[in-house]
Amino acid sequence: MNLKSKKVAIIGSGSWATAIAKMVLENVKHINWYMRKPETTEHFEKTGHNPRYLQNVEFDTNRITFYNDIDEITSDSGILIFAIPSAYLPVILGNMKTDISKKHILSGIKGVVSEENLLVVQYFNRFFNVPFENMGVIAGPCHAEEVALKRLSYLTVACTDEKKAEKFASLITCDYIKTTVSDDIWGTEYSSVLKNIIAIASGICHGLRYGDNFQAVLISNAIQEIKRFVDTVHPINRDIKSSAYLGDLLVTAYSQFSRNRTFGMMIGKGYPVKAAKLELNMVAEGYYSSKSIFEINKIHKVDMPITEAVYNILYENASPKKEIALLTEKLS
Amino acid sequence: MNLKSKKVAIIGSGSWATAIAKMVLENVKHINWYMRKPETTEHFEKTGHNPRYLQNVEFDTNRITFYNDIDEITSDSGILIFAIPSAYLPVILGNMKTDISKKHILSGIKGVVSEENLLVVQYFNRFFNVPFENMGVIAGPCHAEEVALKRLSYLTVACTDEKKAEKFASLITCDYIKTTVSDDIWGTEYSSVLKNIIAIASGICHGLRYGDNFQAVLISNAIQEIKRFVDTVHPINRDIKSSAYLGDLLVTAYSQFSRNRTFGMMIGKGYPVKAAKLELNMVAEGYYSSKSIFEINKIHKVDMPITEAVYNILYENASPKKEIALLTEKLS
Repeated sequence: MNLKSKKVAIIGSGSWATAIAKMVLENVKHINWYMRKPETTEHFEKTGHNPRYLQNVEFDTNRITFYNDIDEITSDSGILIFAIPSAYLPVILGNMKTDISKKHILSGIKGVVSEENLLVVQYFNRFFNVPFENMGVIAGPCHAEEVALKRLSYLTVACTDEKKAEKFASLITCDYIKTTVSDDIWGTEYSSVLKNIIAIASGICHGLRYGDNFQAVLISNAIQEIKRFVDTVHPINRDIKSSAYLGDLLVTAYSQFSRNRTFGMMIGKGYPVKAAKLELNMVAEGYYSSKSIFEINKIHKVDMPITEAVYNILYENASPKKEIALLTEKLS
Repeated sequence: MNLKSKKVAIIGSGSWATAIAKMVLENVKHINWYMRKPETTEHFEKTGHNPRYLQNVEFDTNRITFYNDIDEITSDSGILIFAIPSAYLPVILGNMKTDISKKHILSGIKGVVSEENLLVVQYFNRFFNVPFENMGVIAGPCHAEEVALKRLSYLTVACTDEKKAEKFASLITCDYIKTTVSDDIWGTEYSSVLKNIIAIASGICHGLRYGDNFQAVLISNAIQEIKRFVDTVHPINRDIKSSAYLGDLLVTAYSQFSRNRTFGMMIGKGYPVKAAKLELNMVAEGYYSSKSIFEINKIHKVDMPITEAVYNILYENASPKKEIALLTEKLS
């Protein structure tokens, strides 16, 4: 398989999609790029940059073919890199006619596909017959904004077939991006989902005026909770302290810019959940993920006090103050 | 042994000593408190607060007997809680005549006693014949400033005798301080020493304009480095992701207020080491610790790329830019 000979498509118009496009263009001459709205691609073609995200990154539009039609771009491309909110995945692919079962899929999505509580790779496998060994997951501590600034970042590409993981990785490795490969596609995906829930918890506690001492305890307990969950759901030998797991958690939970943390902070400060959602006007993945993981965990019954506290606050109308006070008794 | 019937002495006048005094006074009626300079204790007695640190914490001076003489306070007290920079320990105790071999010692010091490269408990054992089982170590993620604000914090008290650990812990447990006990006195002490070296590394990288993505990778690699070292030096079953180890690392390395991180940042920004030491006008424990750990590790030969990079920059005149560039190749 020569992945490099296949045409690469980026699906998404957000900051992470834009950062991935930048990395891929360091390695291939030309990419296809899907954005849902024609006005976004028109603006992009006119100005050479994304109208809303990472505007400081200039693209050579001669090296990009833009699409607004998901059937056209999937037909024209061999490797599909998805970087959209998980909630949009069924919306965008719902009416697609193209058979993508032979395509290679790389996911930069950090959420569960909600109605079915599926990981992204499970979703593509079940509904589009893509074999697991043809799919990869990009994870690791990475603010898109720092990719724009070419600040050194380390990404992990997970695929059950490690040779394919290496080929996927070669699409994004460059001067400022170091990559590691892993065969832990399940642990990597679940962990990147869970970290957003923890970021919400971190925000709630900050909003309630818990300090940095407590945050450190919360995060230490959180990585233990993540380990318990992924080790139960997919018991293989993994070091949860690696950048793909712990690093990803740290960069999100300690970030002032994480939308999940900001969402949590508003809840902690007393905003009703609905109001916080409206005010933010964008999707905090962890909001949906906390429900999905809570439901998935009904089968596994892993001890997950932080996830449960977030779920109770967001979905069961529990008082943040009381719920976090209860949580503090369960941490150590 | 009834530890509560013994008179408690605090040795030290810094912010951590002041925070510990506050916690202990939540549990006992009266404490002895040693500060080296008479003008400090005079000011304290006059105003009811520490002249330089945590000035917002008001003390009832009727509940405190102040000392400037180390022989007097050690003679008058059964439990000695030390919270001073490790470099001052031999200075303060050098001329002490009192036999403290029967006393109980609790250490809040986070450094190696330099000339001998000894942990604090080793130092008290070797030079003052205090048995290990009569000594405890206080660790955990804890900015003294947040204790002053009564923000919920979790501390770990380690002692080879866990029952004594519980008694030590009962001296500081209160509404806003939860405590856990541990028998891992070695791992706890080494880990609290190592985290200061990591905080310097973190500061150097920040000074060199590495971003948050890289910081998350650095810290993920750092906790693995700490685990390798403590598991080699004292191989027992411990979870390095606990608050006493990982939490303590996080609160220090992510803190804007850590003197170690600030010291590192100055180095990263180009200050010569001597100038940074002068400018800061206070001891960054990690500066001494990096040399001690580097030397101790000559025996153990643990792979410690971060500690070595810090050592090379601080003691071997290595260029921070080049040394960290080399380090980035060793991380993943």
